[in-house]
Amino acid sequence: MKNTFGSAVGLTIFGESHGAAVGAVLDGLAAGLPVEEAYIAERMDRRRARGDGLSTGRTEPDRVEFLSGVLDGHTTGTPLTFVIRNTNTRSGDYARTADLLRPGHADYTAFAKYEGFQDARGGGHFSGRITAAAVAAGAVCERILADRGIRVYTHIARCAGIDDAPLSSAAGLVCADPEPGHFALLDPSREAAMQQAIRAAGAEGDSVGGILETVITGVPAGVGEPFFDSVESELAHLAFSIPAVKGIEFGAGFGFADLRGSQANDPFVMRGGDIVTATNRNGGVNGGIANGMPIVFRTVVKPTPSIYREQDTVNFRTRTDTKLQIRGRHDPCIVARAAVVQNTMAAFGILDLLTVRYGTLGQKPGRKEPGTCQKG
Amino acid sequence: MKNTFGSAVGLTIFGESHGAAVGAVLDGLAAGLPVEEAYIAERMDRRRARGDGLSTGRTEPDRVEFLSGVLDGHTTGTPLTFVIRNTNTRSGDYARTADLLRPGHADYTAFAKYEGFQDARGGGHFSGRITAAAVAAGAVCERILADRGIRVYTHIARCAGIDDAPLSSAAGLVCADPEPGHFALLDPSREAAMQQAIRAAGAEGDSVGGILETVITGVPAGVGEPFFDSVESELAHLAFSIPAVKGIEFGAGFGFADLRGSQANDPFVMRGGDIVTATNRNGGVNGGIANGMPIVFRTVVKPTPSIYREQDTVNFRTRTDTKLQIRGRHDPCIVARAAVVQNTMAAFGILDLLTVRYGTLGQKPGRKEPGTCQKG
Amino acid sequence: MKNTFGSAVGLTIFGESHGAAVGAVLDGLAAGLPVEEAYIAERMDRRRARGDGLSTGRTEPDRVEFLSGVLDGHTTGTPLTFVIRNTNTRSGDYARTADLLRPGHADYTAFAKYEGFQDARGGGHFSGRITAAAVAAGAVCERILADRGIRVYTHIARCAGIDDAPLSSAAGLVCADPEPGHFALLDPSREAAMQQAIRAAGAEGDSVGGILETVITGVPAGVGEPFFDSVESELAHLAFSIPAVKGIEFGAGFGFADLRGSQANDPFVMRGGDIVTATNRNGGVNGGIANGMPIVFRTVVKPTPSIYREQDTVNFRTRTDTKLQIRGRHDPCIVARAAVVQNTMAAFGILDLLTVRYGTLGQKPGRKEPGTCQKG
Amino acid sequence: MKNTFGSAVGLTIFGESHGAAVGAVLDGLAAGLPVEEAYIAERMDRRRARGDGLSTGRTEPDRVEFLSGVLDGHTTGTPLTFVIRNTNTRSGDYARTADLLRPGHADYTAFAKYEGFQDARGGGHFSGRITAAAVAAGAVCERILADRGIRVYTHIARCAGIDDAPLSSAAGLVCADPEPGHFALLDPSREAAMQQAIRAAGAEGDSVGGILETVITGVPAGVGEPFFDSVESELAHLAFSIPAVKGIEFGAGFGFADLRGSQANDPFVMRGGDIVTATNRNGGVNGGIANGMPIVFRTVVKPTPSIYREQDTVNFRTRTDTKLQIRGRHDPCIVARAAVVQNTMAAFGILDLLTVRYGTLGQKPGRKEPGTCQKG
Repeated sequence: MKNTFGSAVGLTIFGESHGAAVGAVLDGLAAGLPVEEAYIAERMDRRRARGDGLSTGRTEPDRVEFLSGVLDGHTTGTPLTFVIRNTNTRSGDYARTADLLRPGHADYTAFAKYEGFQDARGGGHFSGRITAAAVAAGAVCERILADRGIRVYTHIARCAGIDDAPLSSAAGLVCADPEPGHFALLDPSREAAMQQAIRAAGAEGDSVGGILETVITGVPAGVGEPFFDSVESELAHLAFSIPAVKGIEFGAGFGFADLRGSQANDPFVMRGGDIVTATNRNGGVNGGIANGMPIVFRTVVKPTPSIYREQDTVNFRTRTDTKLQIRGRHDPCIVARAAVVQNTMAAFGILDLLTVRYGTLGQKPGRKEPGTCQKG
Repeated sequence: MKNTFGSAVGLTIFGESHGAAVGAVLDGLAAGLPVEEAYIAERMDRRRARGDGLSTGRTEPDRVEFLSGVLDGHTTGTPLTFVIRNTNTRSGDYARTADLLRPGHADYTAFAKYEGFQDARGGGHFSGRITAAAVAAGAVCERILADRGIRVYTHIARCAGIDDAPLSSAAGLVCADPEPGHFALLDPSREAAMQQAIRAAGAEGDSVGGILETVITGVPAGVGEPFFDSVESELAHLAFSIPAVKGIEFGAGFGFADLRGSQANDPFVMRGGDIVTATNRNGGVNGGIANGMPIVFRTVVKPTPSIYREQDTVNFRTRTDTKLQIRGRHDPCIVARAAVVQNTMAAFGILDLLTVRYGTLGQKPGRKEPGTCQKG
Repeated sequence: MKNTFGSAVGLTIFGESHGAAVGAVLDGLAAGLPVEEAYIAERMDRRRARGDGLSTGRTEPDRVEFLSGVLDGHTTGTPLTFVIRNTNTRSGDYARTADLLRPGHADYTAFAKYEGFQDARGGGHFSGRITAAAVAAGAVCERILADRGIRVYTHIARCAGIDDAPLSSAAGLVCADPEPGHFALLDPSREAAMQQAIRAAGAEGDSVGGILETVITGVPAGVGEPFFDSVESELAHLAFSIPAVKGIEFGAGFGFADLRGSQANDPFVMRGGDIVTATNRNGGVNGGIANGMPIVFRTVVKPTPSIYREQDTVNFRTRTDTKLQIRGRHDPCIVARAAVVQNTMAAFGILDLLTVRYGTLGQKPGRKEPGTCQKG
Repeated sequence: MKNTFGSAVGLTIFGESHGAAVGAVLDGLAAGLPVEEAYIAERMDRRRARGDGLSTGRTEPDRVEFLSGVLDGHTTGTPLTFVIRNTNTRSGDYARTADLLRPGHADYTAFAKYEGFQDARGGGHFSGRITAAAVAAGAVCERILADRGIRVYTHIARCAGIDDAPLSSAAGLVCADPEPGHFALLDPSREAAMQQAIRAAGAEGDSVGGILETVITGVPAGVGEPFFDSVESELAHLAFSIPAVKGIEFGAGFGFADLRGSQANDPFVMRGGDIVTATNRNGGVNGGIANGMPIVFRTVVKPTPSIYREQDTVNFRTRTDTKLQIRGRHDPCIVARAAVVQNTMAAFGILDLLTVRYGTLGQKPGRKEPGTCQKG
């Protein structure tokens, strides 16, 4: 349903870039779950722009104001609603070129869909600004999952042509969160080169993209639904909701095209009394259902479409060809910020699938027996 | 909802590999739309195994028996239901190894999810057999879309290490359907090499995967929903429902990671009075909404997990390590058959999104004015 | 979604009166639950017409053929699908008056909605025939609930002007099921008078209606959702799906209009260590949520619209006024048959709400701790 | 999905009585529809308490603050979100009796459902306060429907034992809205007696209930869906979302139990070139689908459970029997205020069903041809 998603937990997202606020409603959470404002604020801070040449000069306090569903630091079980006010809007930046369609943006599609009535200021509902609401909502879910032993971690696998260390070579599968202002990398020593490459593109009035890799550990085998609501379908549906994501692959992903079955299958093996797979080329998912191994997927984030170079485009009012010179404040690269969005959206997706299986009450740790087949 | 998908048109899929039948319910279709049995049969035939060394020796007549919602070759507006009987089942092939988890399959996850009560015969609900129902349902949608000038076409972009011609060099964007038993390729001359490579892998008791590329033309700008129900989210959700699909990318896809914004943006240009883009790196979608250009995406199909080589695995009853030697009848490559499934599922997704925008009645050609912004 | 309903368990119903079959898909059931064919057959038998002057002469064997989701008498966890073939159709009865709109029927609305493409034979999708599928699906749910200690019982509170004994005076709240062919009554001694009154109306070419009363015991306090998905909303949504139901009331129902608050409130009282209410005027629901007391509601079933008296109507092809003389085979009263439909649909609704709270796994007895607040 | 409802238009409602705010998200509206703040404010004013002995002394300004989806007085097509701040909360009124379950309220069920973590202040999410959000959202829908020629009107059919004039005898079917502070009645001369009876009950520390009657005109024949999403199911689902509604009946409603088919059927007749029914005992709905006649239904509103008389109840912490003496500010009758809620919720339901049929774009007047069967 358009701006609401989820089978058992519903997430509704609203807001425009230059409107009063963005926000969300999370419905279907059990009562008594933790809502830690500090945890959420830390996630918001990691998504924030810093105006440091790596992200836009539009900085926002991103204070999450809870309106319902929270009392004394826990959920009440009714819809959890919050708003994040927009404070630093400069619609004037857009006025001069308001009739020109920005390539790579949703200007034209919004115009076609809403027939001229859309809120076009700053990209409106299609702005990355709305992901602030996604992050706050997903941070609530991340925190709930943590109590059930489920962790979600996203690192920048590639950005501006520079790779992070591959997952298998990482000392620890799930690393500590990076310090504020730093990139989520398995090998932090590569950050400097990445940031330099981003700044170089920005200095040329251009932008760069990258690839995110997300790992989810602790999901019990048996979570996910057959056919339409597979783990992969749910996570992909959410990933493509994130502006600028244009691809997703699980496990060996597109690499499967050049593998043989004997290389692609993950052999089962007993380990410590549990059934596990010796390799994880299928990314923790078989037949759409979690198999208890880490769920691993990669998403590609396209280069920011807002660039300062002159571009060919169309004036949609006069319906004539013209040139566009964007001004305003933009990120030369949104990969680092998108990592936080991807991570929190994945957390929401997993919480939703868990709730389908275990019910609202099953969101709480210790409420469900683990079952004979789960390795949680 | 698990085995039902769609916002305005609902598709419910059911059945098991060795049960009585597979089938589907399509709900939300307007009355008076064509249900051409010959068209559907042709699609079913294209998905069929032929027992020719390229696909499994289990051949099925795949006769689509309509139970409701169809009268005199048109829809009645009520749920359209059909079943496809399973006739050629040899559960005995599986009995000897019933307790051994087949690597790459859903045996373990089904066992974990259904706690031993699953129908495990032939893969049960997780078998590719269920895609027969998906194809029949999607073929109904394809035919309806054709009346509105919307075409969906999927070719094998890569298989067993051999590429088809790239999309841009194809003489015609959308080619004629291949002859029965032939592969959907932009360059048919590459078929022989592909089939030879598949047979070679099969001869070694192994299997191969590949990449499909789907092009959808004629979707009006403005179709798709913001945030959660983007064109990309809907098509990805459906793609990952198809067994063996492990990745999807739109337009330049993962290639975006190494492009700059100036290379990734598609400039707008007036052409014949319409607003179009000069390039189509974004695959016909901006901000999640169709922009009127062809929608282009690629999906990766992993190698068939059923291989004849001995594999390490676990006996889930004795919980001990063991070796598995699969017998039975299996495809050395399912890419060609998956192309039909992918194509029809995409048709369903587009019909669903069109219906959200135009209503049930808007499924019929000529019922809606095209609007000022649509380029149809 | 039109012909699919349910938040956590999905029920999709399909079929037409004179088509090949009616049937249903139940999705979201846990694996390993009982599917007792004898239990279902008994429910089907209770809904069947007997051609005895109390119900239509169209008698059907109503054999439930399972196509998927069932193995060895239990659910497999995947969609449970069944069909019930239509065998005794006489479309010729309708041909002579096919262009005349039958008053009280859906002929005109189906014509308006489907623009002439509807399957009009025997009422098509709007026929009471489709409730055969509802009963079979709901019988599966009834049986599952029974294992959790939840019982649903519906009696004929009033029919053809004759009342059953009131609920409070009944010796046992939930009575034994009546013998085949008999009415569900708290006071069986009233059956003869009811049946006589029905036959009298039938003899005059007319029909009668009545009121059903349903009692559901054993639902734990806390089941149901606030605002939109209250127990009352869910049960009412389902009740109005049943053809001929035109009203529903919970507890004191429309009688509340003439009560004062001091008469309408149910005082709480401790009993045997449990919190219960001393009276049950609110019908087991407070604020939309089950309070652990029996859930009690009444539905009104209008007189069968098919009567043999001449009626004024319109020929929709010639668009002229005319007279209609119905032939064919019809029930002078459908109240007794509707009781079975109402009962099974309520069972489905309760199972759905239970699953929202406890998850798929929680459908099984003994899988969830009762919690501190539930009185089960 | 719990606090979200709607097939094509989604309404999500949130908030608690003594929390920061109540509010709602309306998703699925076309762009360019009117959002008239004066119209909405007038509806809010009609729902407001006045502290005049007829309604609670808790008066709220009920200012609707739009956060998204509205620009320059029209919808933008993206989620329309608003909040209504709670300003006049006196949680202290409840503190003294916080452990005592108020009979007829949701205290116990909320406790059972949320296991003690609910926001119990002032009834929390179960308070009538949340209907302020429902009214504002529904008022937006009412206004949109008005442009398509659809009117919704609700009068107090009975209250405190006093009847309004019956619908058929009313001079005009749909009357002018009453003046602010006055009751919606077909016969305004009965207001004084009703209000006197309410004040009399209040003076005795008691409360009264009543019956609302809603009429919807202008809905085209063919709107509504078969089986589960009938017009009656949709409107009933919404009606039972409203606190204190315990019953709903369409057309002759429970009166059908004592009619014969020959009295219950509405004969069709040609009138002015349209197919209409000579009577409207089926309340504008046949087979769940609108037949073009006015849709007529009645809902019963129970007496306010908050009464000042001493009541028996239970202390849920000590689990002992006790007496409750409610203080705080309460309505002796909520029927007049509930009329506004019922009216606006019905408007939402009709807009949703229209959108299923005509699509988002079809919400606008003049966008759809009327069709051959519709009488608009």
